[in-house]
Amino acid sequence: MNRHLLSIDDLTSAEAFGILNTASELSKISDGPMKKLPTLRGRTVVNLFFEDSTRTRISFESAAKRLSADVINFSAKGSSVSKGESLKDTAQTLQAMGADAVVIRHGASGAAQRLADSGWISASVINAGDGTHEHPTQALLDAYTIRSRFPKHQDDFAGLHVGIVGDILHSRVARSNVLLLTKLGAKVTLVAPPTLIPVGIQDWNVDVSFNLDDVVKKVDVLMMLRVQSERMKDSFFPSEREYSRGYGLDIARLNSLQEHAIVMHPGPMNRGLEISAESADSHRSVVLAQVSNGVLVRMAVLYQLLGGPALAGEVGA
Amino acid sequence: MNRHLLSIDDLTSAEAFGILNTASELSKISDGPMKKLPTLRGRTVVNLFFEDSTRTRISFESAAKRLSADVINFSAKGSSVSKGESLKDTAQTLQAMGADAVVIRHGASGAAQRLADSGWISASVINAGDGTHEHPTQALLDAYTIRSRFPKHQDDFAGLHVGIVGDILHSRVARSNVLLLTKLGAKVTLVAPPTLIPVGIQDWNVDVSFNLDDVVKKVDVLMMLRVQSERMKDSFFPSEREYSRGYGLDIARLNSLQEHAIVMHPGPMNRGLEISAESADSHRSVVLAQVSNGVLVRMAVLYQLLGGPALAGEVGA
Amino acid sequence: MNRHLLSIDDLTSAEAFGILNTASELSKISDGPMKKLPTLRGRTVVNLFFEDSTRTRISFESAAKRLSADVINFSAKGSSVSKGESLKDTAQTLQAMGADAVVIRHGASGAAQRLADSGWISASVINAGDGTHEHPTQALLDAYTIRSRFPKHQDDFAGLHVGIVGDILHSRVARSNVLLLTKLGAKVTLVAPPTLIPVGIQDWNVDVSFNLDDVVKKVDVLMMLRVQSERMKDSFFPSEREYSRGYGLDIARLNSLQEHAIVMHPGPMNRGLEISAESADSHRSVVLAQVSNGVLVRMAVLYQLLGGPALAGEVGA
Repeated sequence: MNRHLLSIDDLTSAEAFGILNTASELSKISDGPMKKLPTLRGRTVVNLFFEDSTRTRISFESAAKRLSADVINFSAKGSSVSKGESLKDTAQTLQAMGADAVVIRHGASGAAQRLADSGWISASVINAGDGTHEHPTQALLDAYTIRSRFPKHQDDFAGLHVGIVGDILHSRVARSNVLLLTKLGAKVTLVAPPTLIPVGIQDWNVDVSFNLDDVVKKVDVLMMLRVQSERMKDSFFPSEREYSRGYGLDIARLNSLQEHAIVMHPGPMNRGLEISAESADSHRSVVLAQVSNGVLVRMAVLYQLLGGPALAGEVGA
Repeated sequence: MNRHLLSIDDLTSAEAFGILNTASELSKISDGPMKKLPTLRGRTVVNLFFEDSTRTRISFESAAKRLSADVINFSAKGSSVSKGESLKDTAQTLQAMGADAVVIRHGASGAAQRLADSGWISASVINAGDGTHEHPTQALLDAYTIRSRFPKHQDDFAGLHVGIVGDILHSRVARSNVLLLTKLGAKVTLVAPPTLIPVGIQDWNVDVSFNLDDVVKKVDVLMMLRVQSERMKDSFFPSEREYSRGYGLDIARLNSLQEHAIVMHPGPMNRGLEISAESADSHRSVVLAQVSNGVLVRMAVLYQLLGGPALAGEVGA
Repeated sequence: MNRHLLSIDDLTSAEAFGILNTASELSKISDGPMKKLPTLRGRTVVNLFFEDSTRTRISFESAAKRLSADVINFSAKGSSVSKGESLKDTAQTLQAMGADAVVIRHGASGAAQRLADSGWISASVINAGDGTHEHPTQALLDAYTIRSRFPKHQDDFAGLHVGIVGDILHSRVARSNVLLLTKLGAKVTLVAPPTLIPVGIQDWNVDVSFNLDDVVKKVDVLMMLRVQSERMKDSFFPSEREYSRGYGLDIARLNSLQEHAIVMHPGPMNRGLEISAESADSHRSVVLAQVSNGVLVRMAVLYQLLGGPALAGEVGA
């Protein structure tokens, strides 16, 4: 595996399954009496967040602490970054302070890549969301969650059909998931209003539909995306009510899912908008498993990037 | 003891004394060369603060770290909560991330109870102040402080007379203290201007006085409440000067206290308003002991809720 | 050594070299496989920051964590300090919570001294910058960096010539560096526009020049200060361009430095203003070493103040 995790494109299918396998091994340990491993004791993980995202920050912080790493939270607000310091100087500063891994969240697409490629830093860089580009650990935790619900697909997603519904155009979650799911062999159908489908979608190796009612009947996994209220202001769709009617998961659509199908959402959910409360709380929803798995998968990524020892039973890692 | 600490009402007198006893045991360890205990290693305590309160947050953070727990600070500001996420989703997220205890501070009365009762979460919930309702660890640390000054009252406060002075109406500190002190057997007299006495006070099992000069001569413990400047704007009392003259602890009142009486304040103090600088700094003031005891009592609460092993010498816990 | 580190004036030359020697010993350990020492396990270091300074805060936080101390970050924003709590009450609160060291950053000159002298607190106080007064750990890390580049000057800076360039008037970095460098034996020349030279400079035991082109040819060390944009508004100098032309380190000046001379900057740099990008990134720049050394020197300060055991090979500490 690469020294960094910037994009799903950096991973082969075997490497991606390797991360999921490491996460599985870590989950066995986490179920034991001592959830904390000494693996990364003395290592420092910096959360460098240029955008607020308490959930993602906490998930990485928990993951690093469970591996006994020290965690430094660096919010760009009120820091010298807001005084005009460049990303370069910030990066070099963190490097000089001895960061072993930098988890970066940034509003600009490509920021994590830039940090890793610049030669400014020898620490491992983990992309925790860059603009509308990618959010690779989200895709990995989603794949981990899918795999745990479909045990026959331990090392191949061929035969699984995943629908991804909502604002594909601006969603780094969608983009990373499309890349990973197709790499692992799944069939992906994107569902969105035409204004929220990116140009060039024909190169993505996915199907596109404008009709959610059709798609819900066919998929094994239905992944609902969060509606960003700021998009609403930009008039990508006419109204909340109309969006909800066309692309929200209401009870009728929930009931028309196949018996074994599951419902996913990266959180935080807008209950009543892209997902109804009944759907969010139904037995098909794996939203909370996604959150738990997020900590495990991020532990696995830190573990592999920072060179933890081989785990008993680990395969392909 | 319950899995949660939401209200003083949840505790029997024996349970409350049990917490104080655990705190006493922990204080002996804290006086030794190694202040840190390994008890909660691998456990995660989340500080979920919807209101700013650096003092209370730091006190819980210190308590958890001295027990070797990992601490995650979650300030609702700038989090997805401010993007409209429900308390339910926040709670479930923390749960899914593996929180063992959630310390919640919230502006709405009943928020902690709601979190605990909802079934959203299996973590222990500790109320660190909810609206004008309760702040049970404050009352426990106050009781611990009183007990340490009145050694004859190790397991019974009968015979102790406590005066609580100030904005009873809006004070969760007052409310929790009344509940606990009367439960432990103390006699309580509330002193406040009529506009700051709650309706239904006759059910509280306390005396009420509008005359501080009378009360100071009789009490063993005088507990001054903080004046919230925002109340001032709401015209609950005419002016700072008038409040201070009627209900502040000035040097004359300080001198009319009984020889053995002590002065308490939950902090932060408005010196010159509800308490004069001389009173705050006098030998009768136990304000700093309250702060120190706050860490011990919160350690004891975490210890008991998260099931630490029995402490040598512990009684009734 | 004193219990506190408030000002370079508190240190003898031997004590200052003692801190640098401790930092050298710690650097050997930090280069090993386990960067973390158990020395301060169970001790609590509080970062009490009344001004935002992510870099300094992170540097102290890293230093404390590498010594296994617990770290509590206390930002005065949104705390009871902003509700009008006095420095006294804040200090006493931290003390009562068991802080072993308080690292204070404050906008008012003398705040650290006040905290230490008041009798409010028995914790060690470390001045992390107070107004325009001092920033002693910055001067120590700068001296450490200089020494590591001039190995003949292990315990005497006599014969070294240091130029300090920029806003001397408002710079606590300049002030602490002048005090320390002259104490260690170096010759110091200050370079600045006349409006940015303090009154009474004749008592500082330094040379003053208004001509950077002259000075660059003579010095062994050129220390560029950050231009605070807020000073610009106060019209201490006419324009960025004019400042840069007169007092910036451009490529021509960089090239006229002596062969062995080094360039320093406390960061964060305004590239293109007081220092050109080429100068910042040239092989003469030791800016990143300053950052790394900052963690080591702060470890050494915490180590000595909190009474770590003698380090093998340590001299004069």
